[in-house]
Amino acid sequence: MGVDPGYAILGWGVVDYRGSRHRLAGYGVIETRKDEAQPQRLKQVYSGLAQIIEQYRPDVCAVEELFFNSNQKTAIKVGEARGAAIVACANAGLGVYEYTPLQIKQALTGYGRAEKHQVQEMVRQILGLERAPRPDDAADAVAAAICHANSSGYIERVAVAGGGR
Amino acid sequence: MGVDPGYAILGWGVVDYRGSRHRLAGYGVIETRKDEAQPQRLKQVYSGLAQIIEQYRPDVCAVEELFFNSNQKTAIKVGEARGAAIVACANAGLGVYEYTPLQIKQALTGYGRAEKHQVQEMVRQILGLERAPRPDDAADAVAAAICHANSSGYIERVAVAGGGR
Repeated sequence: MGVDPGYAILGWGVVDYRGSRHRLAGYGVIETRKDEAQPQRLKQVYSGLAQIIEQYRPDVCAVEELFFNSNQKTAIKVGEARGAAIVACANAGLGVYEYTPLQIKQALTGYGRAEKHQVQEMVRQILGLERAPRPDDAADAVAAAICHANSSGYIERVAVAGGGR
Repeated sequence: MGVDPGYAILGWGVVDYRGSRHRLAGYGVIETRKDEAQPQRLKQVYSGLAQIIEQYRPDVCAVEELFFNSNQKTAIKVGEARGAAIVACANAGLGVYEYTPLQIKQALTGYGRAEKHQVQEMVRQILGLERAPRPDDAADAVAAAICHANSSGYIERVAVAGGGR
């Protein structure tokens, strides 16, 4: 499972893979309402993701690391949503791995500074889809999942060093 | 319960109160190890707080809002710990309320720019302790709990506006 974290909208995507065969099992977004208090929104992120994990039973979760944001208040709130999402995964027994946008772009296109549409085109091709998943948040989450699937050498290193599970 | 969130050290304190009588039921810190991966540390924050809630059964939780930090990477990681802590409270059915350091200082000392030692001295006096709780993270958490206990008018407004529970 890949997750693109956010408190207003969180993207998720589940990819089955065996060797170099990838299949998109499901994807979507969890949206929370602007008029809800932040603790309530975080609870919704947690519960929503727990339900998706319950349904798809992924083995591991790849979470996109935050871009640095010029608005620190927003960055902190996205950090909170990230914390809620990571804990939902960890509590369900999933190994959690973190990837920077650069690592994800590199894994998908071979180029760390690829444009968003290039990444989405690779997602489409790798999964044999007619169109890339929508919205962008879901596509980014699917890209994170593919990045994890394609980087097992790197992943083992992280797991040994950091003890993801 | 008051919480001063952090991923390396999180302070907590539980205060019983009826009217203007306050009693310190318990306090402490949850520490996580530097050599653990961040997802693991967030899981420990969540589980540790869930255990404390199980033990003390507080009705509500007052969480200190983050200071803005010049290091954005640190701010995001503290935001993640804050998200994990808030979700632990919300999942246990606690109403969650957020207070800025200014609001906490104001509630304890009547002055929003009070020094840390002045706040700790008020915590000591209000709870009839010989010494203020240690370390500072625990004292700050206790201060957040007292702030909540002493600000019910304000709290009701937040609860109505934001739907804390």
